[in-house]
Amino acid sequence: MTSEGDTVTEFGLDDLPIREDLRGTAPYGAPQLDVPVALNTNENPYPPSDRLAEALAREVGSVAAGLNRYPDRDATRLREALAGYLGHGLDAQRVWAANGSNEVLQQILQVFGGPGRSAMGFEPSYSMHPIITRATNTTWVAHRRGPDFAIDTEEATRAIAEQRPDIVFVTSPNNPTGTAMPLEAIESVLRVAPGVVVVDEAYAEFRREGTPSALTLLDEHPRLVVSRTMSKAFAMAGARIGYLAAHPAVVQAMQLVRLPYHLSEVSQVVAATALEFSDELLGAVKRLREERDSTVEWLRAHGFAVADSDANFVLFGEFADRSAVWRAMLDRGVLIREVGPPGWLRVTIGTPEEMSAFREALLWAAPDHQP
Amino acid sequence: MTSEGDTVTEFGLDDLPIREDLRGTAPYGAPQLDVPVALNTNENPYPPSDRLAEALAREVGSVAAGLNRYPDRDATRLREALAGYLGHGLDAQRVWAANGSNEVLQQILQVFGGPGRSAMGFEPSYSMHPIITRATNTTWVAHRRGPDFAIDTEEATRAIAEQRPDIVFVTSPNNPTGTAMPLEAIESVLRVAPGVVVVDEAYAEFRREGTPSALTLLDEHPRLVVSRTMSKAFAMAGARIGYLAAHPAVVQAMQLVRLPYHLSEVSQVVAATALEFSDELLGAVKRLREERDSTVEWLRAHGFAVADSDANFVLFGEFADRSAVWRAMLDRGVLIREVGPPGWLRVTIGTPEEMSAFREALLWAAPDHQP
Repeated sequence: MTSEGDTVTEFGLDDLPIREDLRGTAPYGAPQLDVPVALNTNENPYPPSDRLAEALAREVGSVAAGLNRYPDRDATRLREALAGYLGHGLDAQRVWAANGSNEVLQQILQVFGGPGRSAMGFEPSYSMHPIITRATNTTWVAHRRGPDFAIDTEEATRAIAEQRPDIVFVTSPNNPTGTAMPLEAIESVLRVAPGVVVVDEAYAEFRREGTPSALTLLDEHPRLVVSRTMSKAFAMAGARIGYLAAHPAVVQAMQLVRLPYHLSEVSQVVAATALEFSDELLGAVKRLREERDSTVEWLRAHGFAVADSDANFVLFGEFADRSAVWRAMLDRGVLIREVGPPGWLRVTIGTPEEMSAFREALLWAAPDHQP
Repeated sequence: MTSEGDTVTEFGLDDLPIREDLRGTAPYGAPQLDVPVALNTNENPYPPSDRLAEALAREVGSVAAGLNRYPDRDATRLREALAGYLGHGLDAQRVWAANGSNEVLQQILQVFGGPGRSAMGFEPSYSMHPIITRATNTTWVAHRRGPDFAIDTEEATRAIAEQRPDIVFVTSPNNPTGTAMPLEAIESVLRVAPGVVVVDEAYAEFRREGTPSALTLLDEHPRLVVSRTMSKAFAMAGARIGYLAAHPAVVQAMQLVRLPYHLSEVSQVVAATALEFSDELLGAVKRLREERDSTVEWLRAHGFAVADSDANFVLFGEFADRSAVWRAMLDRGVLIREVGPPGWLRVTIGTPEEMSAFREALLWAAPDHQP
């Protein structure tokens, strides 16, 4: 810390009395680069249609005259719309929404985590789980996934029984590997977990045929939380709407820690309007799933190792120097993500044109993988 | 906690393994009642104009086609616009924005507070300060304001020197009392405080002539944070935009804890658009200040005690049974706020018609106060 006499210009982040565990850390987030083909943040490449864009403008215009008032603190209309979309007999009492699933996860940690408590995850997985865990002063307990990127149920249940984490994170389909977890495995985890089990289903809509959602388990498991987002399938990453489905008591618990009026009136109406366009938006999801499956096929045909994917991205490898491949592809205008286990790279599924550019750049960047 | 065999219907909040310090608490927030005259949450009674509403619809429409992409994580354009509005030579590097000033305050606590750290405030003041402090596992240290609702500088500096809080909150103008803190007093606090000093200026635009803002102290004090909101003067409570001005190092520190993409593209464009209508919106502020001054005058003329107010609300009393007065006014369709020291009530400044309804309801509810 500096004394009062220091001039402002000499003063820097290190001079501030920030928490010791934040010293030397960097802001989290993928580079926001301006490139022709951005396949690095699992965005949906299909923009909202003109019809939806017009509806959004119209609906925002219709609430604009009331923006001097605070929004509905409970976002009831939006939660009803989300419940209607999810089905499974859900209603607003069993759904909660916030500014992106990151805020949903932060609220879960604020309620069930904190000092003296712990959260367990199975890595590689979504990097925000440990970050939000630590940011809420909760201890992060990491276990590894198997070589096929699945969670070994026996190992997982043994670890949970021994270490008794207050929160267990299961990402399914998993990011960055695309791996879905079978319901029986999730039920095994639920049976042994002493606290809440959060199944992060950010990519649920991209599941292959026959892969079920943990939503079907909610009726029997009051300590199960299924988190979702409108960023991916609904192509609304810019609108920041995440949500969860759970027992009504879990939703009540979220209300104990949410900041009052956390979700703006504009966010509520934008999300509710997008939900009215579900058919249109989920049509694009179907195209992305097909593109995903053909990308997996193509990669395998060209000798790459590929993780089975139930998401809108594919993890592939293995590279002796993945950074070199990543950089060479960026030089060709294709930005993918250097994430996950060493030797692997992740590509988000884009439009057919973008995936064509991806294939070309990859063969150029890693020619020795051609069969 | 219940065993796995319990049915979902029997399960309640008490059965969840929530944090012990949350047990028995209730969600924070004023009742959202549907009444003819709502003067309870310090909202601005003047809705955005048709021109502004149209501009908001148009601007949201123009970004809608890009909502499949994540927003600018750093909200640079908005921060530039906010800096331009604030003046004082500020720029985007010295301004940070989030979903309401509550989220700004939460981020400050996440950086500078946490387990083993403490935050000090001078009560009565904004109730979210202790709530957010405790929610981030920071210790709350409360001192009282004097009988005139001012902070006694000598007592405050002595308390800070002794207890060395990591964060000092100064609300100026103070909520719920309306009391502004002189700059010399804030400077005394800055000289002795070992950590950061947060001057919460949510109501700054309503200050009376001659009352300065702590923004003028920023150049000399790198540990000073001035927080603001667009909810009040800008009549944008429904849009949830809070912000702060501080040294660039403080802004960098916020970026270490903010959730990635915390502020939606829609929020960013709504806020930036509203800022372009500053002249129009601040015109309504002038009318509210005049209405505030005449409300104070009227209350005093009718024998009520009234705290000097630099905000868009007035604290008045004293009542032997303030709850009875509050309820009697509500029966007449006028909702004010039962908050602050015992015996006092707070009324938000509304339109001339609303204040006329307030005066009538008050005289009916507390006839013995007539001079």
